[in-house]
Amino acid sequence: MEVMQELHMNKGNGDTSYAKNSTVQREIISFGKAIIEEALLQLSGNNDIESMGIADMGCSSGPNTLSVISEIMDVVRAASGRLGRPVPEFRLFLNDLYSNDFNYLFMSLPPFYKRLKEEKGIGVASHCFISGVPGSFYGRLFPTNLLHFVYSFSSLHWLSQVPIGLESYAVKPLNKGKVYISKSSPQSVLNAYSSQFQADFSAFIESRSQELVPGGRMVLSFLGRTSIDPAADEACYQWELLAQALMSLVKEGLIEEEKVDSFNTPYYAPSAEEIKVEIQKEGSFLIDRLEAFEVDWDGGAVTDIHTEQGKALIGERVAKTIRAVVESMLESHFQIGQHVMDVLFVKFAEIVGNYLSKTRTKYINFVISLVKKG
Amino acid sequence: MEVMQELHMNKGNGDTSYAKNSTVQREIISFGKAIIEEALLQLSGNNDIESMGIADMGCSSGPNTLSVISEIMDVVRAASGRLGRPVPEFRLFLNDLYSNDFNYLFMSLPPFYKRLKEEKGIGVASHCFISGVPGSFYGRLFPTNLLHFVYSFSSLHWLSQVPIGLESYAVKPLNKGKVYISKSSPQSVLNAYSSQFQADFSAFIESRSQELVPGGRMVLSFLGRTSIDPAADEACYQWELLAQALMSLVKEGLIEEEKVDSFNTPYYAPSAEEIKVEIQKEGSFLIDRLEAFEVDWDGGAVTDIHTEQGKALIGERVAKTIRAVVESMLESHFQIGQHVMDVLFVKFAEIVGNYLSKTRTKYINFVISLVKKG
Repeated sequence: MEVMQELHMNKGNGDTSYAKNSTVQREIISFGKAIIEEALLQLSGNNDIESMGIADMGCSSGPNTLSVISEIMDVVRAASGRLGRPVPEFRLFLNDLYSNDFNYLFMSLPPFYKRLKEEKGIGVASHCFISGVPGSFYGRLFPTNLLHFVYSFSSLHWLSQVPIGLESYAVKPLNKGKVYISKSSPQSVLNAYSSQFQADFSAFIESRSQELVPGGRMVLSFLGRTSIDPAADEACYQWELLAQALMSLVKEGLIEEEKVDSFNTPYYAPSAEEIKVEIQKEGSFLIDRLEAFEVDWDGGAVTDIHTEQGKALIGERVAKTIRAVVESMLESHFQIGQHVMDVLFVKFAEIVGNYLSKTRTKYINFVISLVKKG
Repeated sequence: MEVMQELHMNKGNGDTSYAKNSTVQREIISFGKAIIEEALLQLSGNNDIESMGIADMGCSSGPNTLSVISEIMDVVRAASGRLGRPVPEFRLFLNDLYSNDFNYLFMSLPPFYKRLKEEKGIGVASHCFISGVPGSFYGRLFPTNLLHFVYSFSSLHWLSQVPIGLESYAVKPLNKGKVYISKSSPQSVLNAYSSQFQADFSAFIESRSQELVPGGRMVLSFLGRTSIDPAADEACYQWELLAQALMSLVKEGLIEEEKVDSFNTPYYAPSAEEIKVEIQKEGSFLIDRLEAFEVDWDGGAVTDIHTEQGKALIGERVAKTIRAVVESMLESHFQIGQHVMDVLFVKFAEIVGNYLSKTRTKYINFVISLVKKG
């Protein structure tokens, strides 16, 4: 699978779309907003910026994308007001992979601009320039010194590719019956994953370092782990359960076992230590903050898991959230049609519901605030 | 119909797609390339540009878009070589309406970058930044002084809206049985069209004037007319024939006559005089060149129209070219399904074949090269 070609959130706004199933990501953004605000206040306080270059790395195509932009503009406008400076012009760059649903995202811009005009006045709306920048953020995307602020939500846990040695065409499958690091995975699998993360994350930091002006800021939010063990439940149990669902379809003869054996997710949940090491190695950023917090698998909606109905509901909700994100990859690898995909996620929902009724495993999400050295 | 929401070339790369049916536009581009080259040579000769901002206004989603970019880079590289200067960094902005198929366009970027690397080396490829800028070019799209070169092919004959008074919701249809200016149209229809062109074209010139640096250049290519008469065949006969096809479907009971009466195309084929007046009124551009040339309705493919087979083939080819461009508008206004749309264009192809076997009406295309005053 070519991640750069195949990975994208489910398109459009149908029942299985990312736009309709991104409440976990919304939850994560709401945690990150306070840190974005703090970063922007310091950025505005220390620099008199006439035209502010801002990039969303891995913007996807859901409603979250534009809501963050709106908040950013509010914070910067308020800060400018307090400092007695004119509000800067905003140049907003929305980045995601080539296969992202930019059409859906762009079609949401006319109502966005309309609201901007109504709520913030024509002056603000006419000084806001939004563009789409397709490409992998694990390489250069922008000219040197173009940006003042970069942020990224729920994207950097995706690797640029399936780790070397674990690709679907590998001669010997190293991670049989699993789709990510698992307690039973051999050390070689763990090493392949952590090496890929190191290569990718350092490429990200290096590229952004060139694109950001000195004093520029970056807020990154993505899934990781607090445990040292990369096979800890918080880091990988959602994949463990997806593997279980896939294997149950193998038993039913709906997919081939070899297909499961040869599939590994291009994902990694790093520890704070692993993140820090890469940032320090690159050397051009100061870490202002690095915080971890827990996120419910279902985005924290209030439902009683201890009823049969609640269990089913929560299982379904989690399954939908994960489906919106991984369906494009599964489709490309397993070559299964809509029907088998539906069967898979009904099974997965059931497994997730049962699991969550017994344990309260949560995702760990990091928010990191960085300053480019002067 | 909201032009900004509804007008787009047919998406994807199927049989009726714009990507597969844009040979007329390719023909027009090949005429325009010499003038683009001349403009770029003068731009490069008079200015030492480190990072060149280039915008394609109305880029659409076909293969023509990227082929022009490639040529532009070649010309600028060659010019830099001759002048003994380093090749500038290229910042390329692809603009079109929100509803354009940016997904299709962006998916063609990975092979484009790959070719760029192979043919021109990694140095060039890594100094080329392409982004998508959705929105109407009849307003501001970019920050002040961002651009050095602007070009637009086959787009400026589209108006920002159906002329005032001719909208589908107008109480009294003024242009019965027609879809554009026709020999039988009342003077009020002609006036409405020319007023809309003046308002739109001047808005375009004003916006670009602010976005281009002093000395920046612009090459615009779009359909127009050499005749003073806006109802001359060269300016409108394709619409006359489309109206005939629509009226024949009215006779068959497939569409309602009122629907034809209330439809007017947001299109205008101006004269050189009308173009010059708006440029001079705005005042910040010098006209370096303004040339008109003829273009075959079918893009100049060699087929003998005097055989029944040739007639059918040419009719079909012209119909496909026009369908790829107007289908989104017809769909939105007439609310007809795929079947009736097919019937319409089979009829239209027949009418066009018959017409072209008797007369040799061609499109008139303008290419205008402008310099922003210093």
